[in-house]
Amino acid sequence: MTLARVQPDFDGAACPIPLTDYPHVLLAHGGGGTLSQHLIDKIFLPAFANEALGSLHDGATLPVERGVLAVSTDSFVIDPIFFPGGDIGSLAVHGTVNDVAMCGARPFAITAGFILEEGLPMDDLWKIAQSMGEAARAAGVRVVTGDTKVVDRGKGDKIYINTTGLGIVPQGVRIDPARATPGDVILLSGPIASHGVAILSVREGLAFETQVTSDSIALHGMVAGMLDAFPDIHVLRDPTRGGVASALNEIARSSRRGMRLDQSALPIAEEVQGACEILGLDPLYVANEGVLIAIVPPEAEGPVLSAMQAHPAGRHARRIGAVVADHPGTVVMRTTIGGTRVVDMLSGEQLPRIC
Amino acid sequence: MTLARVQPDFDGAACPIPLTDYPHVLLAHGGGGTLSQHLIDKIFLPAFANEALGSLHDGATLPVERGVLAVSTDSFVIDPIFFPGGDIGSLAVHGTVNDVAMCGARPFAITAGFILEEGLPMDDLWKIAQSMGEAARAAGVRVVTGDTKVVDRGKGDKIYINTTGLGIVPQGVRIDPARATPGDVILLSGPIASHGVAILSVREGLAFETQVTSDSIALHGMVAGMLDAFPDIHVLRDPTRGGVASALNEIARSSRRGMRLDQSALPIAEEVQGACEILGLDPLYVANEGVLIAIVPPEAEGPVLSAMQAHPAGRHARRIGAVVADHPGTVVMRTTIGGTRVVDMLSGEQLPRIC
Repeated sequence: MTLARVQPDFDGAACPIPLTDYPHVLLAHGGGGTLSQHLIDKIFLPAFANEALGSLHDGATLPVERGVLAVSTDSFVIDPIFFPGGDIGSLAVHGTVNDVAMCGARPFAITAGFILEEGLPMDDLWKIAQSMGEAARAAGVRVVTGDTKVVDRGKGDKIYINTTGLGIVPQGVRIDPARATPGDVILLSGPIASHGVAILSVREGLAFETQVTSDSIALHGMVAGMLDAFPDIHVLRDPTRGGVASALNEIARSSRRGMRLDQSALPIAEEVQGACEILGLDPLYVANEGVLIAIVPPEAEGPVLSAMQAHPAGRHARRIGAVVADHPGTVVMRTTIGGTRVVDMLSGEQLPRIC
Repeated sequence: MTLARVQPDFDGAACPIPLTDYPHVLLAHGGGGTLSQHLIDKIFLPAFANEALGSLHDGATLPVERGVLAVSTDSFVIDPIFFPGGDIGSLAVHGTVNDVAMCGARPFAITAGFILEEGLPMDDLWKIAQSMGEAARAAGVRVVTGDTKVVDRGKGDKIYINTTGLGIVPQGVRIDPARATPGDVILLSGPIASHGVAILSVREGLAFETQVTSDSIALHGMVAGMLDAFPDIHVLRDPTRGGVASALNEIARSSRRGMRLDQSALPIAEEVQGACEILGLDPLYVANEGVLIAIVPPEAEGPVLSAMQAHPAGRHARRIGAVVADHPGTVVMRTTIGGTRVVDMLSGEQLPRIC
């Protein structure tokens, strides 16, 4: 393992705003006048192009069928804004699409609210908008409406993005953390901790022999396959901030059940494990952006695992533990050396501004 | 007119987080651990209490009927966060409720995404959450899901709030700026420019003989009355950032129609007019947060104006101009001294961070 400076890599597509005139975002770009219109016309509309966007300035209108709507909101304040495996734009799409999917819903639309810091390179905004648009198209969701504000230099940090996602919950699906039941098995879709380690490696200027890449990806396709295989999944959760440990603690508290984890079953890439050791991080608490936890009745283990493994992000899906009647509200792990320990919630987090 | 320091007034309700332990927001409050949970349990859940909130951590689920959904998103970065007539919390509710209403929809739910700066007084957060909750209850919308991020000191400015609103468009309603038609009349619900002047007076530490108060209020009740009186309203718009001038310019461009304004018909409070003169502001470009523009066929003028005037915020509603076939895309005003002038769009804005 070697240490060296690493540069985030980004793709260069040409920004349609003349960078000689406007190399940076100005306060006036957030003023609601012609410069605001310029950003919308030149950057956002081309990046997000779809019918719903752009017809009404104050909002979008979308036909819906009778059913259950899932709504989720998330603000992204990640630092750095470009990182191996993604950027704040693609992350803002994946994060919210996944939160909607964790309600068991099929996401169909997201909104995009930008808070730009005066001085943000215009070309960075263009790259981020392009990346958001690509992530949204790949996920099959439309960016239906948006908003842009600009704050003075030193009152923000380049760019913050809020995305709010909408989805429809299929009939018969009832995901609820309170439904975790003793005997249920806990499934995990893939190797943990790579998002947090990728971010920290850029932030700290570290490089490892194998570059660690964020796992940021949309998981709703995997969820759809899982629900087709077994509609009565009890709990879904994507362990982002706070990692697998915090997610399971939250579910344990909501359901007032105990959780038992098997450390040897936890998938983790060798380079991520090594980086965590060097950096002094417990991978159980490190953020993920392309991993989900499913809690299902024991008879669903086979079909749901197969559905997970059929998705590119779920190839390493496996059972990592079970819901138990003992120690309600508490997560306990059998360690690789044969002992057991309580996996508690942290009070804060190991890494600020990880998403 | 006198000038003196002015203090924003705020109501003191006791913050349930012990301020001796946590007088300020810490980075750890955004980490997804027990301190994050503490904010949710002690501040947000009590302020926003409703069934949908709090059951699922990743999102909310809401039953919907078949129909047309209106969606709008807005980030609020106003400085100062407390001002005469409101605060960033109530403004974030009113602003988004109004954007949904401007689609002709009945708002029923909003989401709340907070970006807090490390060091924000906990008591301020509590007051803002309380104020948001009160504004939402008064407007009859529920805060159904939320998110909190904390950024390091100097990377934000106390608090930014994103709200995304959802509403249902009643059958037969089709609001669209492209529908402005020559012969249509332009109605305005109330006196202009008070929000911008109220903010600037606090920011600059000015006081006038009569304190100017923001007009921030939810307008969806007024819109419902107007649509009951005449369902085929062509255009609705709340002239926030950029004021009446920018809103009419946007509609003129979308519809490729001309707009003719009558300056003498424009309602403006005497103290606001005076303050604009002192501050060198053109009230036509100053932000409003409790005013709407309606563009309706001529036969609708009577019934729609009556409906507007029946609402407390619409007592001074009046006709201010008409849509014309001449000068498409351009807004022209007959001035009080008898001339005419083009009312163009500004490139930026007179006042940054006004909402």
